[in-house]
Amino acid sequence: MNDILVSEVGPRDGLQSIERVMPLEAKKAWISAEAATGVKEIEVGSFVPPKLLPQMADTAELVKHAKTIDGLTVVTLVPNAKGAQFAADARVDGVSIPFSMSETHSIKNVRKDHPAMIEEIRAAAAIAKEHGIHFAVGLSTAFGCTYEGAVDPNAVARLAEKAAEAGAQEFSLSDTTGYADPAQVRRLTKLVKAAVGNDMLTTLHLHNTRGLGLANVVAGLEEGITTFDASLGGLGGCPFAPGASGNLVTEDLVLMLNSMGLKTGIDLDALLKVRSIIEEALPGEPLYGFTPDAGPMLDYRQRIAA
Amino acid sequence: MNDILVSEVGPRDGLQSIERVMPLEAKKAWISAEAATGVKEIEVGSFVPPKLLPQMADTAELVKHAKTIDGLTVVTLVPNAKGAQFAADARVDGVSIPFSMSETHSIKNVRKDHPAMIEEIRAAAAIAKEHGIHFAVGLSTAFGCTYEGAVDPNAVARLAEKAAEAGAQEFSLSDTTGYADPAQVRRLTKLVKAAVGNDMLTTLHLHNTRGLGLANVVAGLEEGITTFDASLGGLGGCPFAPGASGNLVTEDLVLMLNSMGLKTGIDLDALLKVRSIIEEALPGEPLYGFTPDAGPMLDYRQRIAA
Repeated sequence: MNDILVSEVGPRDGLQSIERVMPLEAKKAWISAEAATGVKEIEVGSFVPPKLLPQMADTAELVKHAKTIDGLTVVTLVPNAKGAQFAADARVDGVSIPFSMSETHSIKNVRKDHPAMIEEIRAAAAIAKEHGIHFAVGLSTAFGCTYEGAVDPNAVARLAEKAAEAGAQEFSLSDTTGYADPAQVRRLTKLVKAAVGNDMLTTLHLHNTRGLGLANVVAGLEEGITTFDASLGGLGGCPFAPGASGNLVTEDLVLMLNSMGLKTGIDLDALLKVRSIIEEALPGEPLYGFTPDAGPMLDYRQRIAA
Repeated sequence: MNDILVSEVGPRDGLQSIERVMPLEAKKAWISAEAATGVKEIEVGSFVPPKLLPQMADTAELVKHAKTIDGLTVVTLVPNAKGAQFAADARVDGVSIPFSMSETHSIKNVRKDHPAMIEEIRAAAAIAKEHGIHFAVGLSTAFGCTYEGAVDPNAVARLAEKAAEAGAQEFSLSDTTGYADPAQVRRLTKLVKAAVGNDMLTTLHLHNTRGLGLANVVAGLEEGITTFDASLGGLGGCPFAPGASGNLVTEDLVLMLNSMGLKTGIDLDALLKVRSIIEEALPGEPLYGFTPDAGPMLDYRQRIAA
């Protein structure tokens, strides 16, 4: 049993953030190779209309491939109930629906205000339940929004309660905009856990836009968060470009967690080698992370952890 | 009264790590400009033989300049008692002597084993005391050594006790090699505080070699650390080059602390402008940090903190 679940979201959050489309075979190779390093959950794509995000058009095929990998939890993002039905048809293990805490962002992004999103969550949850699919809600822009600025933490807690009532089985807090700081992570995690129950808020989806990603992980660990999303190579474009995410780098996250003596089940040396699949499939695409250049910690870490 | 003291070490740790010598006037301008942003302590140089580190040859002149700045604590590094005498002659406010927890590193670096270093600390402390200078000991390679690998944390605690007995007034734990992780920061801080007294271990000197710098700051904050060393622009060379430090970036540290609602007294917008002094004096020198590109947090942070 691992202490911490590292959930790889690069094939979804990384690839949807860049213009080029990674060939299907390369995506399959990435997913297989990363699962082989010990990564136990991968978000392989998103069931969105292909004309909106052609990068995600092969999600059903990726699910089919990933489901052949023993012990891997295969999840996808779905924007709405229609996407949940596609995910069910593809036989995913779990889906995650983003629920933007900033109503302005929600309206601009998916043309739905908060009451409409709650009804969408209810409909998607019903589909997931019918097919025995795990149903998670991602509380996006939870730490602030580029349109609205501050997001009231009490409003986040109230919206989470409503989503739980509508069928959410699990929550993540998502720092969509890269505004989270460690003190805020602790405050908001406490508040949402108090609202929906300790075991319902398991996950942080952090970005590294301002370099605080791993610092925010430490804050999350202190509050009992057990799942962290990350993207191999921090794929998803330059963190400084407008709209780009600056995803937390999987390699650096694993380096830190393993060094701390937390069990991730992931072989860091093997993980570092998976980068070459992205480098070959998307030549010139910027990849991030300190660990690939600085190298893993010395062997004595393993000795200390032993 | 500020909550946290950010101690700028760039003019010492940054500049001694690069080959080029920054002109004296540029150093003065940097120190003045950074002090004007609210930085209250600057390590302006090191009293080492100029033939060993020509970059530090003007330390006495820098002390003289920095002492004219109201409210600024002017500190220097000293490798030994001889250096402490130079520092006393220059009328610094405080000195810091590195004491390498790895005896191999100590012998290779300053040709002194641990007993010899304790006697050097005793002699330097006596000089500092005579001149009313604050005397700090930096426990370097405390988190691991490239020669020895693991450093026994209990040995660190015992060596700190000996240094306290020899006259240390304050300690820092220094991650010279970039090996520290947040769990280790907590363990070692607890252990050394238990050995020498809670108020004696105030400072962490962290490097960002593997991107864990700010995560380690969060761990230090949890253990009551109140002073963090950092270098403007992360000056000190590429963190991946052998032997280079990869200093914690002052701008990112201040962004995080200010965002967390901790009082540093430092104006981040003003601090970001000081980078241009380094850029102009050392054209082409790589500078680091996320904040300068991503920009500070939105104004709402200040509103939330209010």
